[in-house]
Amino acid sequence: MASSNNEQDHVKAAGLFDRLWGKIVKFGLMLKKLGQDDPRRVVHSLKVALALTLVSMLFYFEPLYEGFGLAAMWAILTVVVVFEFSVGATIGRGLNRMLSTVVAAALGIGAHRLATLSGNEGEPILIALFVFVEAAIVTFFRFIPQMKARYDYGLLIFNLTFCLVSVSGYRDEEVIRLGFERVITIIIGSITAVAVCLFIRPVWIGVELHNQIANNMDKLANFLQGFGDEYFKVSEDGHSRDKPSCLEGYKSVLTSKGSEDTMANLARWEPGHGRFRFRHPWKQYLKVGALTRQCAFKIEALNNYLTSETQTPQEVKSIIQGPSVVISSECGKALKELATFMRKMTKSSSNEAHIAKSKDAAEELKAVIRSSLCKHPGDSLHIIQEGAVASLLFEIITCTEKIAEAAHKLASQAHFKDVKPRVTPGQDGSSHHVITIE
Amino acid sequence: MASSNNEQDHVKAAGLFDRLWGKIVKFGLMLKKLGQDDPRRVVHSLKVALALTLVSMLFYFEPLYEGFGLAAMWAILTVVVVFEFSVGATIGRGLNRMLSTVVAAALGIGAHRLATLSGNEGEPILIALFVFVEAAIVTFFRFIPQMKARYDYGLLIFNLTFCLVSVSGYRDEEVIRLGFERVITIIIGSITAVAVCLFIRPVWIGVELHNQIANNMDKLANFLQGFGDEYFKVSEDGHSRDKPSCLEGYKSVLTSKGSEDTMANLARWEPGHGRFRFRHPWKQYLKVGALTRQCAFKIEALNNYLTSETQTPQEVKSIIQGPSVVISSECGKALKELATFMRKMTKSSSNEAHIAKSKDAAEELKAVIRSSLCKHPGDSLHIIQEGAVASLLFEIITCTEKIAEAAHKLASQAHFKDVKPRVTPGQDGSSHHVITIE
Repeated sequence: MASSNNEQDHVKAAGLFDRLWGKIVKFGLMLKKLGQDDPRRVVHSLKVALALTLVSMLFYFEPLYEGFGLAAMWAILTVVVVFEFSVGATIGRGLNRMLSTVVAAALGIGAHRLATLSGNEGEPILIALFVFVEAAIVTFFRFIPQMKARYDYGLLIFNLTFCLVSVSGYRDEEVIRLGFERVITIIIGSITAVAVCLFIRPVWIGVELHNQIANNMDKLANFLQGFGDEYFKVSEDGHSRDKPSCLEGYKSVLTSKGSEDTMANLARWEPGHGRFRFRHPWKQYLKVGALTRQCAFKIEALNNYLTSETQTPQEVKSIIQGPSVVISSECGKALKELATFMRKMTKSSSNEAHIAKSKDAAEELKAVIRSSLCKHPGDSLHIIQEGAVASLLFEIITCTEKIAEAAHKLASQAHFKDVKPRVTPGQDGSSHHVITIE
Repeated sequence: MASSNNEQDHVKAAGLFDRLWGKIVKFGLMLKKLGQDDPRRVVHSLKVALALTLVSMLFYFEPLYEGFGLAAMWAILTVVVVFEFSVGATIGRGLNRMLSTVVAAALGIGAHRLATLSGNEGEPILIALFVFVEAAIVTFFRFIPQMKARYDYGLLIFNLTFCLVSVSGYRDEEVIRLGFERVITIIIGSITAVAVCLFIRPVWIGVELHNQIANNMDKLANFLQGFGDEYFKVSEDGHSRDKPSCLEGYKSVLTSKGSEDTMANLARWEPGHGRFRFRHPWKQYLKVGALTRQCAFKIEALNNYLTSETQTPQEVKSIIQGPSVVISSECGKALKELATFMRKMTKSSSNEAHIAKSKDAAEELKAVIRSSLCKHPGDSLHIIQEGAVASLLFEIITCTEKIAEAAHKLASQAHFKDVKPRVTPGQDGSSHHVITIE
C-alpha cells in the first residue's frame, strides 16, 4: 500500500515535471519566434547590454570614481531609461533629459540660495513652497497636448532635478557640486546611449514610418486585388468559403492611427540619414496614412459582403462582375505601384493609368446598373446588395485618387528621385530602360 | 532723421511687446481651458506637488536624513516617476518598481559576492559579464507582448537596480547597505505616491474605461438619432448643408482601440472600489468596445452619403424615408438606453423593444425595396445609392444587436443591479416606478 502510494507520488511528480518542462520549452520557442520575427530585437538587447556595461565600467576607473563618487550611478540610470529601440526615441529622451536637467539644476540652485537667505527657520518652509509651486506648474504643463507629444519626459525630469537639487542639503557648495555632478553624469549617460544606438545598426523610426505607410497601402492593394476573384468565385458546394488570409491584412490599418502619430513625433528628433533629410515632411506621411485609413474603412464595408450570410445568386452577381473586377484590381494595382515607388523613394505617375482604367470601368459599371441591374427580374434585395458593392467600389476609386495625390505631394516635398518612365521595348530596339534605383 | 529712426524703433519695440503679450495671453487662456475641460487635471497637479513636498521634507527630518543620507533622493525620484494620473497606473508602476527593486537588489548583491570571490583581478571582468548578460536578457524580455503590457516598467527597473547594486563598490557591506537603502527609500516613495493618489480625489482608470465605453455608445446613438432628419431634410436652397456637430462625435470611436486597451491593462491593477470589484470583467469591456467600433465603421460609411456630392432627388429618397428613419432612430434609442444603463450599472432589457421595432421597420423597408424602389422610373444610380443606405441600416441593426448582447453579458459578469422595468402609469394608478438608482 505504502509503496503504491510512493509510486503514485513518483508518477505525480513526473507529471508535474513534464508539464513544467513543457511550459519552459513553449516559453523558449516563443522567445525564439520573437527573435526570428524581428532580429533587430536581439541586436537591440545586445546594444543595451553593451552601453550599460560600458557605463558600469566607469565605476572601475579610479580617477572617475574618485571624481564623481556615487553620483556616477546617474550615468547608469540614464543609460537604462534613455536607451530606446529607435534612434528618434533615444535622441528625444536623451535631449529632453540633458536639457531639462541643466535648466532645472540651475533653477534649483537658485531656489536653494534664495531659501538660505531667509535664515535657518524660514529655509524649510520656503523650499517646501518652491517645490510645491514648481511641481504643480510643471505637472500641469504635461497636460498641454503639444508638450505631451514631444517634451513629456523633459518635464518629468525637470520636476525631478529641481526637487533633488533644491532639497539636497544645507550648504550651498554641496548643492552646486550635486547639481554639477548630476548634469555631467547625465550627459555622459545620454551620450553613451545615443552613440551606441546611433552607430551600431541603428533603427530609424522615420524609416519605420515610411515603410509602415507603404506596407499599409500594400495591404489594401492585396485585398483589392483578391476581392474580385473571391467575391465572384463560383463556390462549388455553395457553402461558406474560407477566405485567404491575404484578405485580412487590411484590418491592422483600421487602428493604425496611434502608432503613426507616435512614430511621426519621434521621427522629428532624428538627424538626416540616407535619403531622409532633417526636415523630412513627416506631417505629409500622416496625411497619406489618414487617407489610407479612410480607404480601409471602405474596404471593411466591402469585406462584409464577402462574409454576408445572404449570398446573392450568381446570375445577379454576374451582371456587375466584369467592371467590378476591373475597378477593384486596377485600384489595387495603383495602390501597389504607389507603395512600390514610395519604398524606392522615387516619383512616378504610372499609377495614373490604373486609376484611369478603373474610372473607365466605373463608367461602364454605371451604364450596366442603369441598363440591366435594376431591370433584372431577381429579388430586389439582391440587386440592392450588388448596388451597394458597386457604390463602395466607386468610393474606393475616389479614395485611391486622393491617396495618389497625397503620395505625389509627399514625393515632391521629400525630394524623391525622378525616374524616366519604363519604355516598352520594341518602339526602338535599344531603349530598354528598367528602373534600377535602389 | 535720427529722431524719426528712434521713433520707428519705439514703434517696433511696442509692436514686438504687443505680439509677445498677445502670445502670453493666448497661452494663459489655453491653460485655463485645459483646466476647465477637466478640473481633475488641476487636482492632479496639486496632488503631485503635495506628494513631492511631503517626500522632500523627509530630508529635513534629522533622524531620517542621518539614516539614509543621500539615498533619500531615491524617494523623491520614485514619487516623480511613479505618480500617474490614475490610481491603476500609479499602483501598477509602484508595484512594478518595488517588486523588481527587491528582486534585482537581491540578485545584484549575489552577483557582487560571486564576483568578489574571484579575487581583485577577476572581479571587474565577472561583473561586466554579469551586467552584460542580465541587461541583454531583461531587455529582450521587454519585447514579449504580455510582459510589455503589464511589466515593462518593472523590467526597466530590474535592469537599473541590478546594475546599480552589483557595480556599486568594492566592499560587500557597502553593497548590501546600498541595496537595502534603495529598497527602503523606493518603498517609502511608492507608498507616498500611491497613498496620495488613492486617498485624495482618486481618478479610477476603470471608471474612465467604463464611462468611455458608455460615451462611445452615446456618440453612435447621437449620430443615428440625427441621421434620419439630416439625410431626408429638404434643403431649401439645394446646396451643401452644414452638418450639426453632434453628427461628428462618432469619429473618435473609430480610433479608440489603443486607449481602450491601455485603460483595461491599467484597470486590472486597481483594488475594488465602489461597485467595481477587484476582478471586474475588463476584457468584456474591450469586447463591447470592439463591437461599438465595428458599428462606428458602418456609421462612417453611412456618413458618406450625408456629404456625398451626387445628391439623390427627394422623390427617390422619400421612397425609403419612413422605415429608414425608424430604423436609424430606434437603433439610436437602443444604444442610448444601453449607454444609460451601463452608466447606472443596472441591468435592463428595455433596449430590446427598440431593436424589435427597428427589425419590424427593416422588414417594411425590405418590402418597400422589393415593391417600389427598383420599379421607380428615376436614375438607377440614385436608386442604387438609396439601396446602399438601406443596406447599411440593416447592418447597423445587426451591430446594435451584437452590442446589446455583449453589454448584457457584461452586465451579468459585472453583477450590475437588476431593476424592475419602468411600469407605465395608468395601468393601475399607484405603480409609477421610476428607476431611481444612482
